[in-house]
Amino acid sequence: MADKPRRPRAETPKGFRDYFGAEVTMRKSMLDRIAAVYHRYGFDPLETSAVETVEALGKFLPDVDRPNEGVFAWQDEDADWLALRYDLTAPLARVAAQYRNDLPSPYRRYAMGPVWRNEKPGPGRFRQFYQCDADTVGSSSVAADAEICAMLADALEEVGIPRGDYVVKVNNRKVLNGVMEVAGLAGDDKEAERGIVLRAIDKIDRLGPEGVRALLGEGRKDESGDFTKGAGLSEEQAEVVMGFTTAKRDTGTATVARLRELVASSVVGAEGVDELEGIAELLDAQGYGPDRIVIDPGVVRGLGYYTGPVYEAELTFEILDEKGRKRQFGSVAGGGRYDGLVKRFTGQDVPATGISIGVDRLLAALQAKGRVEGETAGPVVVTVMDRDRMADYMAMVGELRQAGIRAEVYLGNPKNFGNQLKYADKRQSPVAVIQGGNEAAAGTVILKDLILGAKIAESATLEEWKDRPAQVEVPRGDLVAAVRKMLGQ
Amino acid sequence: MADKPRRPRAETPKGFRDYFGAEVTMRKSMLDRIAAVYHRYGFDPLETSAVETVEALGKFLPDVDRPNEGVFAWQDEDADWLALRYDLTAPLARVAAQYRNDLPSPYRRYAMGPVWRNEKPGPGRFRQFYQCDADTVGSSSVAADAEICAMLADALEEVGIPRGDYVVKVNNRKVLNGVMEVAGLAGDDKEAERGIVLRAIDKIDRLGPEGVRALLGEGRKDESGDFTKGAGLSEEQAEVVMGFTTAKRDTGTATVARLRELVASSVVGAEGVDELEGIAELLDAQGYGPDRIVIDPGVVRGLGYYTGPVYEAELTFEILDEKGRKRQFGSVAGGGRYDGLVKRFTGQDVPATGISIGVDRLLAALQAKGRVEGETAGPVVVTVMDRDRMADYMAMVGELRQAGIRAEVYLGNPKNFGNQLKYADKRQSPVAVIQGGNEAAAGTVILKDLILGAKIAESATLEEWKDRPAQVEVPRGDLVAAVRKMLGQ
Repeated sequence: MADKPRRPRAETPKGFRDYFGAEVTMRKSMLDRIAAVYHRYGFDPLETSAVETVEALGKFLPDVDRPNEGVFAWQDEDADWLALRYDLTAPLARVAAQYRNDLPSPYRRYAMGPVWRNEKPGPGRFRQFYQCDADTVGSSSVAADAEICAMLADALEEVGIPRGDYVVKVNNRKVLNGVMEVAGLAGDDKEAERGIVLRAIDKIDRLGPEGVRALLGEGRKDESGDFTKGAGLSEEQAEVVMGFTTAKRDTGTATVARLRELVASSVVGAEGVDELEGIAELLDAQGYGPDRIVIDPGVVRGLGYYTGPVYEAELTFEILDEKGRKRQFGSVAGGGRYDGLVKRFTGQDVPATGISIGVDRLLAALQAKGRVEGETAGPVVVTVMDRDRMADYMAMVGELRQAGIRAEVYLGNPKNFGNQLKYADKRQSPVAVIQGGNEAAAGTVILKDLILGAKIAESATLEEWKDRPAQVEVPRGDLVAAVRKMLGQ
Repeated sequence: MADKPRRPRAETPKGFRDYFGAEVTMRKSMLDRIAAVYHRYGFDPLETSAVETVEALGKFLPDVDRPNEGVFAWQDEDADWLALRYDLTAPLARVAAQYRNDLPSPYRRYAMGPVWRNEKPGPGRFRQFYQCDADTVGSSSVAADAEICAMLADALEEVGIPRGDYVVKVNNRKVLNGVMEVAGLAGDDKEAERGIVLRAIDKIDRLGPEGVRALLGEGRKDESGDFTKGAGLSEEQAEVVMGFTTAKRDTGTATVARLRELVASSVVGAEGVDELEGIAELLDAQGYGPDRIVIDPGVVRGLGYYTGPVYEAELTFEILDEKGRKRQFGSVAGGGRYDGLVKRFTGQDVPATGISIGVDRLLAALQAKGRVEGETAGPVVVTVMDRDRMADYMAMVGELRQAGIRAEVYLGNPKNFGNQLKYADKRQSPVAVIQGGNEAAAGTVILKDLILGAKIAESATLEEWKDRPAQVEVPRGDLVAAVRKMLGQ
């Protein structure tokens, strides 16, 4: 016998996944709500294509902790290298440069859609995921930063995260740079040390002050015994940095005052403190107090391209992790000011600031809190008792649909009636419609309340179930009204 | 001087484009309406990732006229070849095979999203474009085909194409195969001839009967003198085919009867005619008459994988083409039955049928008819007369947004007030809010009606404009109410 040709594998590529039914509608419902907030704030939608030239994307992959992370790229027929976008900021910078003479300035845009990362997939880590961004390009005013933070708070509340269950933290890269300067870590030759320091500060929630302190010095051995080399800072240098990490006070004003003490001698640091103060004042004036937005020196944001204020939205309620331990849900959005991204293309300074919401994480949070919308009821299923009367059954669904009721005829092989009810069950159908020969002759239809039926089946004996209390026979002409009644409409 | 590093080009890759503002919201509004119809018919959403293995996609690119058209593909690190999906049907076939034990059967799903084709871009032809599909997998019943056609008609009306401005045409590949058999073109060795014949029939609207006749014989010289080689059919063979292309009658019943005469001697042909008859009867019973859905032997559909009924939705109203000539808008959706696609993976027969709407073409049609929704008004722009009072201006937009009014503060450099009004104009802002020192002292704000202002500016002299009739000064406390009034709310 000759070899049969091998059949293709029916598999999603590694690290990719499919989204079914309610997974799609719940996300859509959440994104629609966020878009409404962005719209109310005067932001316009932009949809760029998934594909960009590698040249336009540049090497600005977020997350310095995973430098091996890359893009999906290929060479086009005309020799250009093309790649899938890895975020929505790089395409925005390209658009802002390409259409700079036509776009309004400032240009406020929002964007939502998938991005792709060519990284090793892990549990819950996929190589395609959604982002939902809003950015203001062309404004150097701290009012633009303050507005982005306020809008982020509004968006979180709009999708169902109540006030008190989230906090938007604000920091400023310039303050960080000032701290580096004061600690004697300013020069080009100190870039490696600065990187280690930034990553150490970013981990303070997880490692605690001692862990961070160890990473500022010689290094740190973790629970598994693995050693991470530190920045090699002197006692004195480390003290400056640690002072910064503990600068948060009860009010924004007090935190700003403490930061001013710490970086007083650095010009860039003082500038950063002024900006933080300006943001805090604008937000206070609008009533966005520390129950919603706080100045927090602990926020670093991995992204290398930030040049000023940085933001992060954290959910503060607790969930159980995979080991059953309580932990805070954590970050669902982040962003900041990046004044250099458009300049790459044009050579001219174009200030910009914005936020990116991690759509999948926020959706997971809403699900954990039971606050998700977009779950849809299954269709009313009209069963097929007599395949020669298909036109009659289709007329029934036609009437139901006309009345706005989700409905369908069973289109599989109608031979086995049990399969039809199993199908209705799998579709989470609320009502099955049955019309056999007797009913057709009598001019009636039978309606089975499958939701009530399932409840009865759970708690009752077979005998009780056989009484079919969740079933009614009604005149054919009353089909729509009777289904409506059973649906509680 | 040292060479400066070359700046990256700020360009979309060749054949790709960006969608701004209303282009995004209009498409979204249209897709939401289509999704509502699909949902009412019992279809569930599915979102697969953009990336598939080349193996899973298979070589089923539509459109036999452009065989060089390909996919964007690259080799993954673990040696798998990956590619961007070129349609939404191939991923559905993969999903139907991968989850065959978990999905309800029949599985009704809809999907909307971008697809990618690695082909030479041309005017209006892009390498990324949207599709919007609905398919029923696991039903061999003609009721599934009839339902898809009815749903397509409903969807077109739902988005704003009125009855009479579109027609859904139905044909059957089996009838075509029957015609081939009768014409003596059945064998494997006749595949090339069959291909030429199918493509010729598909062009009947454009070339007319003589053009098709020429392509069935020796070939055809077009207006530019280019010669297209024909199928080389004999007079007798060509007569059979031409008889088929002219088989359409005034009613579905009459067309079916004529087709039955033509393919009476072919088993597969007769089967195809039976299916067409079944579809026509079901649609008639539901009132989908020839004003909406017709049996039309002229429909071929390029796609090689169709095995039974094929559908095409055409818009019948006239538009002016680029040369100012009237022509029918043409096809906006197509589909059919493809019983072999899932079998590729599983070896088992899985019947399937579905439709794909060309989103960009349908949207263009709606725009041509002025029947598009989703255009959004620009924001109320609060101008900045005194940059030290930014908090006051932000409080104004805060109040407006609270009241559900789209609003923003001007965030550019406020130095030049003219620029602020130019910005408001570019944003198509309906109202500008102005509060200088005098107004602040008086506790008032000035509202400029920019829509009325623009109308006056168009038709009036500068003197009249100077009277500023489209401008009012109101107490600060009346801001929201006065803006509402100016917006006509």
